[in-house]
Amino acid sequence: MKGFAMLKIGETGWITKDAPACGPLDAICKPIALAPCTSDVHTVWAGAIGDRHNMILGHEAVGEVVEVGSLVRDFKVGDKVLVSAITPDWGSLAAQEGYAMHSGGMLSGWKFSNFKDGVFGEFFHVNEADANLAYLPEGMDLGAACMISDMVPTGFHGAELADIQYGDNVAVIGIGPVGLMSVAAAAIRGAANIYAVGSRKNCADLALEYGATRIVNYREGDIVEQILDLNHGFVDKIIIAGGDNDTFDQAIRMLKAGGKIGNVNYLGEGDYVKIPRGDWGCGMGHKQIAGGLMPGGRLRSEKLARLVMANRIHPEKLITHKFQGLESVEPALMLMKDKPRDLIKPLVVID
Amino acid sequence: MKGFAMLKIGETGWITKDAPACGPLDAICKPIALAPCTSDVHTVWAGAIGDRHNMILGHEAVGEVVEVGSLVRDFKVGDKVLVSAITPDWGSLAAQEGYAMHSGGMLSGWKFSNFKDGVFGEFFHVNEADANLAYLPEGMDLGAACMISDMVPTGFHGAELADIQYGDNVAVIGIGPVGLMSVAAAAIRGAANIYAVGSRKNCADLALEYGATRIVNYREGDIVEQILDLNHGFVDKIIIAGGDNDTFDQAIRMLKAGGKIGNVNYLGEGDYVKIPRGDWGCGMGHKQIAGGLMPGGRLRSEKLARLVMANRIHPEKLITHKFQGLESVEPALMLMKDKPRDLIKPLVVID
Amino acid sequence: MKGFAMLKIGETGWITKDAPACGPLDAICKPIALAPCTSDVHTVWAGAIGDRHNMILGHEAVGEVVEVGSLVRDFKVGDKVLVSAITPDWGSLAAQEGYAMHSGGMLSGWKFSNFKDGVFGEFFHVNEADANLAYLPEGMDLGAACMISDMVPTGFHGAELADIQYGDNVAVIGIGPVGLMSVAAAAIRGAANIYAVGSRKNCADLALEYGATRIVNYREGDIVEQILDLNHGFVDKIIIAGGDNDTFDQAIRMLKAGGKIGNVNYLGEGDYVKIPRGDWGCGMGHKQIAGGLMPGGRLRSEKLARLVMANRIHPEKLITHKFQGLESVEPALMLMKDKPRDLIKPLVVID
Amino acid sequence: MKGFAMLKIGETGWITKDAPACGPLDAICKPIALAPCTSDVHTVWAGAIGDRHNMILGHEAVGEVVEVGSLVRDFKVGDKVLVSAITPDWGSLAAQEGYAMHSGGMLSGWKFSNFKDGVFGEFFHVNEADANLAYLPEGMDLGAACMISDMVPTGFHGAELADIQYGDNVAVIGIGPVGLMSVAAAAIRGAANIYAVGSRKNCADLALEYGATRIVNYREGDIVEQILDLNHGFVDKIIIAGGDNDTFDQAIRMLKAGGKIGNVNYLGEGDYVKIPRGDWGCGMGHKQIAGGLMPGGRLRSEKLARLVMANRIHPEKLITHKFQGLESVEPALMLMKDKPRDLIKPLVVID
Repeated sequence: MKGFAMLKIGETGWITKDAPACGPLDAICKPIALAPCTSDVHTVWAGAIGDRHNMILGHEAVGEVVEVGSLVRDFKVGDKVLVSAITPDWGSLAAQEGYAMHSGGMLSGWKFSNFKDGVFGEFFHVNEADANLAYLPEGMDLGAACMISDMVPTGFHGAELADIQYGDNVAVIGIGPVGLMSVAAAAIRGAANIYAVGSRKNCADLALEYGATRIVNYREGDIVEQILDLNHGFVDKIIIAGGDNDTFDQAIRMLKAGGKIGNVNYLGEGDYVKIPRGDWGCGMGHKQIAGGLMPGGRLRSEKLARLVMANRIHPEKLITHKFQGLESVEPALMLMKDKPRDLIKPLVVID
Repeated sequence: MKGFAMLKIGETGWITKDAPACGPLDAICKPIALAPCTSDVHTVWAGAIGDRHNMILGHEAVGEVVEVGSLVRDFKVGDKVLVSAITPDWGSLAAQEGYAMHSGGMLSGWKFSNFKDGVFGEFFHVNEADANLAYLPEGMDLGAACMISDMVPTGFHGAELADIQYGDNVAVIGIGPVGLMSVAAAAIRGAANIYAVGSRKNCADLALEYGATRIVNYREGDIVEQILDLNHGFVDKIIIAGGDNDTFDQAIRMLKAGGKIGNVNYLGEGDYVKIPRGDWGCGMGHKQIAGGLMPGGRLRSEKLARLVMANRIHPEKLITHKFQGLESVEPALMLMKDKPRDLIKPLVVID
Repeated sequence: MKGFAMLKIGETGWITKDAPACGPLDAICKPIALAPCTSDVHTVWAGAIGDRHNMILGHEAVGEVVEVGSLVRDFKVGDKVLVSAITPDWGSLAAQEGYAMHSGGMLSGWKFSNFKDGVFGEFFHVNEADANLAYLPEGMDLGAACMISDMVPTGFHGAELADIQYGDNVAVIGIGPVGLMSVAAAAIRGAANIYAVGSRKNCADLALEYGATRIVNYREGDIVEQILDLNHGFVDKIIIAGGDNDTFDQAIRMLKAGGKIGNVNYLGEGDYVKIPRGDWGCGMGHKQIAGGLMPGGRLRSEKLARLVMANRIHPEKLITHKFQGLESVEPALMLMKDKPRDLIKPLVVID
Repeated sequence: MKGFAMLKIGETGWITKDAPACGPLDAICKPIALAPCTSDVHTVWAGAIGDRHNMILGHEAVGEVVEVGSLVRDFKVGDKVLVSAITPDWGSLAAQEGYAMHSGGMLSGWKFSNFKDGVFGEFFHVNEADANLAYLPEGMDLGAACMISDMVPTGFHGAELADIQYGDNVAVIGIGPVGLMSVAAAAIRGAANIYAVGSRKNCADLALEYGATRIVNYREGDIVEQILDLNHGFVDKIIIAGGDNDTFDQAIRMLKAGGKIGNVNYLGEGDYVKIPRGDWGCGMGHKQIAGGLMPGGRLRSEKLARLVMANRIHPEKLITHKFQGLESVEPALMLMKDKPRDLIKPLVVID
């Protein structure tokens, strides 16, 4: 089969491989829709997860089942499915403890385009199919469906980690596609004021549509000062969905004692995340710091799909560019790499 | 001063009393807006809290401060204020444990029109003013503001007790004013499908506007069957905001194992709430049952007011009937007693 | 193979069956040690789970692996193992939501001697072996090990459901083997005073050794009055590990507002669990009621085994009667049925 | 009155002041027993909280009430009382949100020897007496009682922040008096193996007595390696009760994905706490970091006192040196400053 792959750090290309084999618990799918992710860009050009050779890229997809293993009970050939970017081993000790995304080791629930070939090929392999696939709801927009692989669950996990409660004033740092979903997540978890930090116009517009009350542009001054000023004091909760190691310094300085930070930004570089001692209350300020990979799996996909079908969220609005045909994953990925100012997220529909 | 009072069980009337005295931590307010509550009706005509003599009724109000005690730091004469129906003793052991509403004994954070005169008078007394009043936000609708005394926090507490999470399918039983706020609360806490149980057209219409996905009318058949059918199986969470002791039987029968019930309905009669043993998993089904009086106090009022000011919720839509002048609390209460079909909630504005 | 079975309601006997087949994820074990449980008695003589024909009984065992499926990675023939009484399907939606014990339907994580043959045979079958077995720690007492199947995790779950916190005063109702483990669990989760309700001397003695501060004998008067008196008021938390539907009435009456009840007693009869309306704060007292089947699986067994090996708990002290040889499960079960006053728990060691 | 004070940074001495005035909610106490704390040393000689002039030191005391304000209901002259080191304003927004220790601003629930005179004088002032004092239980050891001011609640809060669950393997870093109480707290909250990091023999001996399973001496090699080796892998939870900003680096490196850190060590110096990016899972490892000032107030004191009276904990064993008379607070504090190797904690009993 054909697939679009990372050949080595810094280089991509089309390769031919044997189609993946299907174990007793597994399914083989072909893609119906695909989306490249900033992580794909980091994987190839920043070498974020180390070197990989001839590994097919991609972890955001809607698929159709073409083969199922002998122990698969709930899916059959021809079923159209939501595919979680994170496909844990559900019997693992990590999963039994509530951290399935770390089954097999920290972050190891992330398998596509990390430990095995991703979804940018004619076929892809899904482990524990009954537990990691979900039915594509009748009538669901393919763009929304594809965003349920990663953008929606990752953005929403930020709001969960930040533990947003009714009436909280919340800062969301970063309004790329994940941050935008964090804004939507904060709004439908009961946040009052949402200060969304970003600078690109199309993202800012969508942030406001998703429920942000104010846009804070870091090009217009220190975001800590701007937010403290807008909010007349410290915020209750912070979702970090962009920035870098130093973003935590800013976050701690605008967070109230007893507040919480939820990070869903992958920190790709640097040795240390720096927590400012004094603003952190000398270790005693109850400013809790949590960060985690999104929960994957079927239940999560199903519950988020329900939110789409009940018109609570509109992830299809993230899609700014549409492509047709498997071969378009290449230009779609290049678009993610180049990040033109009108881009939020591209979608590739396979015929 | 003049006040509209419960004279004894079954009888109301206007009385004259000395204005309340102001202790060092207290404030005296005069009402700007008032609303009668179904509890006032239960108090007078069902004798729900036992007999009371010449006790001024009412616990929903927006006020203006006319006197403050020597230890009050944050409020001054002339301030316009949100008034919580529940005004706890914040230093109590119950409050220190997180259950301020039970300070001084179970349910004893509820003082207005229970242990002391309520708000339906020329003046009313607020204990621990700094902790139990909140500033009326500039520009807030008086109807919305008055609903923050009780309807909003009570309805919202149902969603908190039911512990609604992203994508949950939720039943809300009862769509009087509290149940309607529970619908709104479920929608902005991340519920997917919301099945709202009720029969009155204006309530059903507002439930749909507040986020219900379906109305379930108990006049059209067993609600358990209807909801299991609509939802293709058990619901994840249930908010009980109406009904009686037997409602728990219905709730348990439509709730999944691992689900949760949040009750905010005051159960006025009968000896026992009945939990059906088998459907409750013989005591082992992890169907958690929680019920509680709303949290009161300043922080709660402030956070809910933020939701109104950020346009997240619209409690002013509960107000179906408006009256003018303190003397109108009498017809307003009678309206609550008679419950015409076009009533949700009356508001009395004191010029 | 030979096994001791329920022939039909009210009748037991030895039967011969084919040894169980081993699927790809499964293991076949032979027992090293076994214990009968009160549930076995209820299953046979009360028909608690309905009729069953020629079903081998038993769900408490220590085993040795004699066969493993092709997908099993962590266990091999000859490994000695702890066996959880509850063996969930870990990929199920229920497990993904944190309620693995209800995978496949409410209570359906309980498979042994319920949906399939139990452990009282020459061989028994374990589904998802990697996820449901745990290594028997070197040097662990077989009695303690066998109690990790059910008595320890069930008793401990009571303390988890009751959410015991430092300094809580706790009532534990019932001091059979499960209740005794609840006493131990309460003591090592930070309870201060523990009032253990029971009447049998050997149980009372062990309760005191496990950390109870007082024994409350229901033969000496109403337990509610006794406990309110001893505790100078309401208790903070209650674990129900014995009694019947009416026990909840007692529990609610001695529980403070804001308190919690954790039930791990299987309620075998009657239509309704009765919650006293008034003492439950008319539905608003924040007296939370939770009840649930123990969490099963490997992680749970491992963590509880650590507590034994670190000398934090001593479940081997539950064993009052020891038998030798598989054929002794019959007299051991009859002993459970007859409940002589010196019995807490029998153990059968297979050569 | 006479008191032992910080005159300025680096200098202490006896001073004479007016006795404190008693507001309506307050109490004035005289000390029965006192203990100096390492924070007193930091306050004076490291200038940890900035400069203070003629401020009486001390925040650990058992007292006798000599005067009460007009609104105090529960205490009267002559009552012997436990005194919390943290005495919040219970009506504050911070307290209503569950973070009373930050009432009035981050860490501002700490008033004694910080914002007002401490307890090392003939008399001391207690704000909100009903909420911040607790009765000294009949027969309680004065050493244990004095440790309930700070050492016990601070050590125990570490275990709460680390969210220890049954069977967790736990590292406790630091075994000074606070760390020792964290060891005891971990043991009675259900930890299995407890690795206690320290080097002093008397502390190590008491750690073992309090429930540590192993002592890890940082003089004998890298503690991360030692603990990973002893535990055969990552620990589940970590309590930090000593060390410095770099301790968090060590903690993150020995903590499993999904683990939690609870810090109760006051970080007195340096700009940044450093979190190692890679070992923190690039921000996605679910290694939660929480740190907070102990909860103060009456309920906390009462619940911890119950643990002492029920023989669950033995904080009196912390006391290695006893002094007599108020004037002995000076040598007792110097002892804390000099830290001889046989010191854990001194106690001063005021005849």
